[in-house]
Amino acid sequence: MRDALGAFVPHVDCVVQGSGSGPLAGMTFAAKDLFDVAGYVTGSGNPDWERTHAPAKRHAAAVKALLDAGATLAGKTITDEISLGLVGRNQFYGTPLNPKAPDRVPGGSSSGSASAVAGGLVDTALGTDSGGSVRTPAAFCGLFGLRPTHGRISVKGMETQSPTFDTCGWFAADADTFAKVGEVLLGAPIADGGLTRMIVASDCFAIAEPEVQAALAPAAEALGGLFSAVREAPLADRDILDWSRNQSLLQRGEYTKTFRPWVERCVPRFSIEVGTSLALGALLAEAELVGPNAFRAMAKARLGDLLGDDAVLCLPTTPILPPRRDEPFSALTHSVSRIIELTCIAGLTGHPQINLPLAHHAGIPVGLSLIGPKGSDERLIALARQVAALTRSCSVGSD
Amino acid sequence: MRDALGAFVPHVDCVVQGSGSGPLAGMTFAAKDLFDVAGYVTGSGNPDWERTHAPAKRHAAAVKALLDAGATLAGKTITDEISLGLVGRNQFYGTPLNPKAPDRVPGGSSSGSASAVAGGLVDTALGTDSGGSVRTPAAFCGLFGLRPTHGRISVKGMETQSPTFDTCGWFAADADTFAKVGEVLLGAPIADGGLTRMIVASDCFAIAEPEVQAALAPAAEALGGLFSAVREAPLADRDILDWSRNQSLLQRGEYTKTFRPWVERCVPRFSIEVGTSLALGALLAEAELVGPNAFRAMAKARLGDLLGDDAVLCLPTTPILPPRRDEPFSALTHSVSRIIELTCIAGLTGHPQINLPLAHHAGIPVGLSLIGPKGSDERLIALARQVAALTRSCSVGSD
Repeated sequence: MRDALGAFVPHVDCVVQGSGSGPLAGMTFAAKDLFDVAGYVTGSGNPDWERTHAPAKRHAAAVKALLDAGATLAGKTITDEISLGLVGRNQFYGTPLNPKAPDRVPGGSSSGSASAVAGGLVDTALGTDSGGSVRTPAAFCGLFGLRPTHGRISVKGMETQSPTFDTCGWFAADADTFAKVGEVLLGAPIADGGLTRMIVASDCFAIAEPEVQAALAPAAEALGGLFSAVREAPLADRDILDWSRNQSLLQRGEYTKTFRPWVERCVPRFSIEVGTSLALGALLAEAELVGPNAFRAMAKARLGDLLGDDAVLCLPTTPILPPRRDEPFSALTHSVSRIIELTCIAGLTGHPQINLPLAHHAGIPVGLSLIGPKGSDERLIALARQVAALTRSCSVGSD
Repeated sequence: MRDALGAFVPHVDCVVQGSGSGPLAGMTFAAKDLFDVAGYVTGSGNPDWERTHAPAKRHAAAVKALLDAGATLAGKTITDEISLGLVGRNQFYGTPLNPKAPDRVPGGSSSGSASAVAGGLVDTALGTDSGGSVRTPAAFCGLFGLRPTHGRISVKGMETQSPTFDTCGWFAADADTFAKVGEVLLGAPIADGGLTRMIVASDCFAIAEPEVQAALAPAAEALGGLFSAVREAPLADRDILDWSRNQSLLQRGEYTKTFRPWVERCVPRFSIEVGTSLALGALLAEAELVGPNAFRAMAKARLGDLLGDDAVLCLPTTPILPPRRDEPFSALTHSVSRIIELTCIAGLTGHPQINLPLAHHAGIPVGLSLIGPKGSDERLIALARQVAALTRSCSVGSD
């Protein structure tokens, strides 16, 4: 199927009828081409990956959960090559349109899923998030999107990238649909409660572009109204950029290990972006990861202590606006580094993070995020529902 | 044209009739797809290069010289991607057959030219040699091949890789054809004279695989008979591997600069081999090239002093046998490093080097090389003719 948005994998026509009954009956969904669909090769956004892998024998756990709940799979969506990317440019299959900002990238690596949902082609779509791959396209395309608590939603049948970072998330354009799908994937009711404090991460806001800061200020202010206590505090005790430096090394070490046997055997073709990532990964010595691993333990303790059981951290989902579609290579590399500066936090710590599509700058979506305590996924989604109810009465966006 | 060897660029049918008269009348030639042919895009072995470049307005100087001399261009041949490679594996267009050793690579980056000549599809073929790209496939495919004195044959209309290394060379299966083409490209008669001493580079032989050493010993012995004086001496005053370490850095610095604007603009797709080379190049700081540049000046003085006006250096063209076609990525990377250990010498110094197809190991070609004084190109070719006459009476190969 070649859709108008370029969101679906162009050469694969993959439709699977849902069970017909269940909480998602009548709904359609798409799955990023990192999720197994029985009988189809999981292409991972790279033609050499597709060529060198056999069709999946069974559905990925998340695909099966949505089908069983009654939703129909409408297609496989484009991913950044082998899930390594955050802007959503795939040099082999094209860059899906960002329906909310057509001259900007959709964000990645779950680019096609976000594009399909934002463009109304499906009700919801599955994505993966290791370093920011659900949160970034949710922010750029103006959608609700969750990176769940690490380990909370099964990643069975989802292509591995970096095992201690990999999670399965999803997108929806409205909070009610988002919550309905969440109940199925999390296997638990979406219920409020207990998140009573909001900490505005001052250092995270400080590194955002002025346009992002300006767009998010009223949204954060309005959001604060849902909590009994709001305060500003820095997340990092030293430099917030230490977080992304350490996260990048750890994730690079993991995905290099994941892909090495395949690279060895198949000598595949990549865009220069992905080739560079893997080349840098090959230069990484095990000893260089000792410090980052220690940092990770510190980061988990720090965020855990800060949030306790009852607080959320409020931060910009990304410190930058969605880059233009035609950015040259070095600008694109810089954009990716900037995005990781803030998406690294949930990845390093394993905490859940939700993107709330609450703001705009000159018509371009700007995402606000909440990071909750581990296991607070349902409560974050409940908050999203409250926010949506609030915004139906009064807009908190700034244009 | 899809030939049986896979030597020609499969999707381009590029035939240009020669002038009809001249020293090469009745002969056919092929040109590596780095040479401009008027009206055709010069593809450089990478589909994104081809897609982002316009057809050439005029023939490259070397192509024009052969056409004017009466030869007919029979096609464009496969090159390693953007000329970066030494084994001849192109992941986009396939690996040309090595007709002399079908389970081995043909050598690169002038892989298709060597394959086409060795398989008898054309009489001669143009190649480029920056780091070993004529000498390596000549050795692997059992052909005569010359890397000329740097600057001796015009590189006008030949894609730039590393300007201070780039040269235009050619292949032939027999010494007479090789000499006839040489007269046209060099613009001077092939005449003997003055190369009276042969220095056997003991350190270059010492780093070769035992099979290469054993195959070349009788050939070098026989070759010595053409000189009035033969002696063994090391080329390097310290470690011969210093030469390739410095050459690799310098060449990487140059080609990274050459390709950077295109990579920036087009974010192209590469095999992991080439992506890795460019990624490493991007990490190279200008300051890291100060030492290698000083080393290069030393190397030029050292080789110049050693050879004077009248000596040739005898060495294995490559220290290894042609690798198997299906080598995995890390083995392939290692093979390339090994090849550069000896091809670096002529590249660093700008001296001419000829491959003589004088030996075999278990049926696989093993190349012996002579490096001559700068400007001794014609005299090296004359030596090749003498050697050929010699080997017609008595075989010097070892099987």
